[in-house]
Amino acid sequence: MRIAFDERNLMADMAGKENGLNAADLRAGAGLAKRALAGFRASWQKGLYGFPDLPDQSETIAAIRSYAKSVAGKFDTICVVGIGGSALGAWAIDCALRGMHPVQKEFSRKNPRLVILDNVDPSFVMGALKTMDPKRTLVVPIAKSGATAETVATLLIVTAWLESTLGRKARNHFAVVTSAGRGDLKQLAEQRKYPTFHLPENVGGRFSVLSAVGLLPAALTGADIRRLCSGASAMTKLCWLPDLRKNTALRAALCHHLLAARKSKSIQVAFPYSNRLWGSAFWFRQLWAESLGKRTDRNGTVVHAGQTPVAALGTTDQHSQVQLYMEGPNDKVFSFWAVRNQPDAGAIPKTPTGFEAMDYLCGQSLARLLDAERRSTEAALTENGRPNCTFTLDRVDEEHLGAFFQLMEFETAFAGEMLNINAFDQEGVELGKKFTFGLMGRKGFGDYKSRFTAYEAKRKTVKTV
Amino acid sequence: MRIAFDERNLMADMAGKENGLNAADLRAGAGLAKRALAGFRASWQKGLYGFPDLPDQSETIAAIRSYAKSVAGKFDTICVVGIGGSALGAWAIDCALRGMHPVQKEFSRKNPRLVILDNVDPSFVMGALKTMDPKRTLVVPIAKSGATAETVATLLIVTAWLESTLGRKARNHFAVVTSAGRGDLKQLAEQRKYPTFHLPENVGGRFSVLSAVGLLPAALTGADIRRLCSGASAMTKLCWLPDLRKNTALRAALCHHLLAARKSKSIQVAFPYSNRLWGSAFWFRQLWAESLGKRTDRNGTVVHAGQTPVAALGTTDQHSQVQLYMEGPNDKVFSFWAVRNQPDAGAIPKTPTGFEAMDYLCGQSLARLLDAERRSTEAALTENGRPNCTFTLDRVDEEHLGAFFQLMEFETAFAGEMLNINAFDQEGVELGKKFTFGLMGRKGFGDYKSRFTAYEAKRKTVKTV
Repeated sequence: MRIAFDERNLMADMAGKENGLNAADLRAGAGLAKRALAGFRASWQKGLYGFPDLPDQSETIAAIRSYAKSVAGKFDTICVVGIGGSALGAWAIDCALRGMHPVQKEFSRKNPRLVILDNVDPSFVMGALKTMDPKRTLVVPIAKSGATAETVATLLIVTAWLESTLGRKARNHFAVVTSAGRGDLKQLAEQRKYPTFHLPENVGGRFSVLSAVGLLPAALTGADIRRLCSGASAMTKLCWLPDLRKNTALRAALCHHLLAARKSKSIQVAFPYSNRLWGSAFWFRQLWAESLGKRTDRNGTVVHAGQTPVAALGTTDQHSQVQLYMEGPNDKVFSFWAVRNQPDAGAIPKTPTGFEAMDYLCGQSLARLLDAERRSTEAALTENGRPNCTFTLDRVDEEHLGAFFQLMEFETAFAGEMLNINAFDQEGVELGKKFTFGLMGRKGFGDYKSRFTAYEAKRKTVKTV
Repeated sequence: MRIAFDERNLMADMAGKENGLNAADLRAGAGLAKRALAGFRASWQKGLYGFPDLPDQSETIAAIRSYAKSVAGKFDTICVVGIGGSALGAWAIDCALRGMHPVQKEFSRKNPRLVILDNVDPSFVMGALKTMDPKRTLVVPIAKSGATAETVATLLIVTAWLESTLGRKARNHFAVVTSAGRGDLKQLAEQRKYPTFHLPENVGGRFSVLSAVGLLPAALTGADIRRLCSGASAMTKLCWLPDLRKNTALRAALCHHLLAARKSKSIQVAFPYSNRLWGSAFWFRQLWAESLGKRTDRNGTVVHAGQTPVAALGTTDQHSQVQLYMEGPNDKVFSFWAVRNQPDAGAIPKTPTGFEAMDYLCGQSLARLLDAERRSTEAALTENGRPNCTFTLDRVDEEHLGAFFQLMEFETAFAGEMLNINAFDQEGVELGKKFTFGLMGRKGFGDYKSRFTAYEAKRKTVKTV
């Protein structure tokens, strides 16, 4: 397992003094990095945050593998019902290991497809159900709290859809992931005797990909979850090293922190040059945004922290976003994600066409072109004073994917320490949730209904043009 | 056709003085808006920019329909080979009218699927080809210049793949979209007698969705392209109206311009609450970024203009990005995209489960929940001083989609006028392209190869930690 990090284009020597870091900045930041590592390590040792331990939970991994083996060949569709951290990890893994639509092979009971119902858009949910056969579908509801409105609403519909065909046998078509100790989903699962897997209390949704949240769907669709975890475990060891040169997560966190704090890079573009890492870019987007986007620091000082993460896909977005990246506001730092080895390079035929704009490509390969495009984009951004760095995975397989998840989670935890914020809560989404409960008539949320009504009344008085 | 625009949450009355606009700001901006309309109208009348005319090109529309009819039933896969503006419009239309994977029905010759090869990642291209049958595939290469490296490389591979099975009959499996007057793709198509459709010279890729670029794939996959164009044509008329209250494109452009210029909203979040509009969000992301991301204005003054567009999906991204949107830097304006009417509301079963966190939803619908979630998120953002506005489409069909495209294109053109920039070029991507040509050994780009080599040599000397 090898994931390289090249930060040279973040440095003033390459990106210029105004936008790049000096080696002296990094050396001066070594103290901050050391404190971040120590601070997070202390919290982890207190048991506050559990994600570093996930890859080594061999009992959970064995239980998931055993369950997946017991149902293998029964289902052609694994239907995850979950949203946010309960959906993005599963998608990231499936996208990486089996490719995106339209790349995936035809699905069957030997090769079940993964359907993720992560929105309550009725045209999406009802449309997806029409493509599924209840007899061959396993439903996997995932919710830490067990009360997420979107997940519950979708689950009620999917359950009725299963039961209308299968009757009481529908109960054999569920496997649940939720917290051990609480929540209505946990109780429902017990009452109906659904197989249930637990998410540790000290692991939040966005850090849960290597818990049952990500591993159960992965195992059910044929991934080798032991290798996902062994890659992650190897990375975990690197992430505890005090030497900045050896600890990529800590070095990357320091670079991104300094670029945000001192060079006003308020946006981080996650820029995979790999369709297989596109799901991981959306997974990262939640991790970075929800962890670092905070109103106050731990002292209660209002800071409104948080880089805005943007997902871009190379080479595709060179033809969509790079014009802005090159010439627009210099408010971004770019993190390229590259893949060194491609199992099939995509040979371009040797036979010339007789046309100049085509024939220089003959006999080369898509892999070579993809690599040239990325390096050219990096060089062009650098020449324009736009700082950028590159993570390079040796290949896209279970081992590297698990390691990459862990690397990004540690980087995020360290970045949170450097900002002196709590990277593990998400209080900012509560108000919107409560308004929704109020509007949908949930008991105990009448005050929010009233507050919403007042807001609506105020809107009626607003003058525009 | 009706697309409403509600900007009340952009106003200081709702979002607060620091982050919202005053009615006086808008009235004072009326002059700027008037000049923007007149300026763009004058350029259009000179024939500089052709997108306003596209919906009324009845000969092109008839030719596309006639061709689509002639090949109907022959192909189960329409394979677009194109990137950026040559791909995003086709995806936006297909996603809106037929839904995203996994919603689409099984494909067949009566209901062909759309595969868009818009990247040179070999695992993506070679993987997609494995799911396609050359005998039942129509390849649609789309490139305005005919020299786009990614499109050419993919086309060479796809052509060899077709010919290896079909031999000389492969030529019946192509339909090309390119410029009339120039380019190697045009000449290749003539030489091989491929049916060819032209993109007007005064229409750039990101404004081309209602030319053959978007309409040909749409017609081949069953869309009613006349209704796409009639909706767009009706919107075009509204976009030339001088009255800000009636001209949504102009009013929205003014609002977004003022929020960027005076309230430092450097990011615009396009926030559809509809999976079917997810493709359109990526289409918009190119339109806004590539049009407005510019180094200099028309006077040559360095401005580094351009809001960064971000695509977010409701409700899904409430569980991923909204924490940052609520509490992070107040550097964003949110454009919600809502849909008023859903063909199937997604009824939630009435039978209670006995669990409090579930039963308040029973008997309601996904459509109602989706609506409550969006309005709750708008209210919560507003209460946190985060300006937001909402575009509401009566429904997602050809008519509204065509109108929405045209609305966004006019808004972008007007926003460019307000910034006094050229919204129709993309010089910023040239350097990266030239480096790529140099690295891939295209004739005439040796200087860029040398420049790249010098950059690489410099990188070797850079010190980090």
